[in-house]
Amino acid sequence: MATGTVYLVGAGPGDPELLTVRAAKLLATAEAVVYDRLVPESIVSLAPPQAELFNVGKASGSHPVPQDSINSLLLRLAGEGKRVVRLKGGDPFVFGRGGEEAAFLARHDVPCIVVPGVTTAIAAPAAAGIPVTCRGVASTLAVASGHPTAEGDEPDWPALARIDTVVFMMGAANLERIAEKLVAAGRSPETPAALVSAAYWPQQSAVFATLGTIAAEANRAGATLPATLVVGEVVNLARRPVPEGCIREPGL
Amino acid sequence: MATGTVYLVGAGPGDPELLTVRAAKLLATAEAVVYDRLVPESIVSLAPPQAELFNVGKASGSHPVPQDSINSLLLRLAGEGKRVVRLKGGDPFVFGRGGEEAAFLARHDVPCIVVPGVTTAIAAPAAAGIPVTCRGVASTLAVASGHPTAEGDEPDWPALARIDTVVFMMGAANLERIAEKLVAAGRSPETPAALVSAAYWPQQSAVFATLGTIAAEANRAGATLPATLVVGEVVNLARRPVPEGCIREPGL
Repeated sequence: MATGTVYLVGAGPGDPELLTVRAAKLLATAEAVVYDRLVPESIVSLAPPQAELFNVGKASGSHPVPQDSINSLLLRLAGEGKRVVRLKGGDPFVFGRGGEEAAFLARHDVPCIVVPGVTTAIAAPAAAGIPVTCRGVASTLAVASGHPTAEGDEPDWPALARIDTVVFMMGAANLERIAEKLVAAGRSPETPAALVSAAYWPQQSAVFATLGTIAAEANRAGATLPATLVVGEVVNLARRPVPEGCIREPGL
Repeated sequence: MATGTVYLVGAGPGDPELLTVRAAKLLATAEAVVYDRLVPESIVSLAPPQAELFNVGKASGSHPVPQDSINSLLLRLAGEGKRVVRLKGGDPFVFGRGGEEAAFLARHDVPCIVVPGVTTAIAAPAAAGIPVTCRGVASTLAVASGHPTAEGDEPDWPALARIDTVVFMMGAANLERIAEKLVAAGRSPETPAALVSAAYWPQQSAVFATLGTIAAEANRAGATLPATLVVGEVVNLARRPVPEGCIREPGL
């Protein structure tokens, strides 16, 4: 029945120049674009003027569109034979339900092509000058959601506490709880920690502290959303204040 | 002294279309390109014809160029005022010593701009149809090197064994040892596992098995290098055989 194709595309952390070449081409030829809250206008506007745009990050109120409605929308657009770009912040398969949408489309025989993107889990630390791994400092990386209940069960805190570098995506709202859980699981409260807000967006900022102090420091700094929490010795590898050169260059 | 700039750029997993827009622009205007073994010719060839090219993945024999020599090369090129693109497979800050090179350049006051890329840790599973996280299936992801001694100490196997999805980069050579260590640390030998070889290269392939059988199955299939090992229930979310639609589309 359906003759359209859904491209499940990672939009990267926010800077349009951190789209992949493929993502940029797909957007430029899209007939419909279905995008989330964390995809900036500067990226959505790369779609042609005649493309239908659907912001599923907000419904009529301030609540996001339910996943069932997003699935139905994708099915309808594909059924109309459209070339649909489903844009997700970062990488489509790192949280954000990309796997569920791909499985849903497969069950309905809708062709779905996954286009990986630059994940915020790694780019947000990089934006603050922090490499998530470094020889002799960190040889394991873990990524978890700062909203664990949104993605399933509580994470295994003792396991996370023993991974060298731990990144929590969307970590700002639960900063105090995350820090407490990691410390209770055995991680030292002296462990360096950084909260990187709006990485690769014009309003990017970062707060450097320790696991024991990051919640208070972020609160004091008035850290904005969305934000990524990085925990581990690698945080000390960033030069502070964040060097201009490690953030994005203002265009080529 | 130095007036050049070094751009520490992620080349993505291998497909030139998975470069970021910024990486593609930087390559197109590079005066010198210093690249690793895992960056394909199809990407290096995007540099202008007059650019100096340095393959530091191999020296005169089959050994890679020592890190000290790479550092000296970057310093020399920057000292000559060049616009240098230092290209690394995947993301520059996920293994591969990007953090060390950035720190070295900072110590020598060479401007260094980091450009994140699509990491193979996430793209290789995606190429085989595997989302690294999925609500109700996997809410934590860990990334480790398959050559732990190259990046520092032995990883914390009991911690890795308790993370939902574990990805080992360059995991093929030590497949048997990795599987044994995870099982000894408490992970079930029945855990689904996949080895994705040459993700997003024309010769891409994947082997699906379990932790207990992956080494033998990969050996039987004659899996090629480089390869990424994915361990966890998410492996079962891939449709097998790998659906055409989840691999790369042959150009737009």
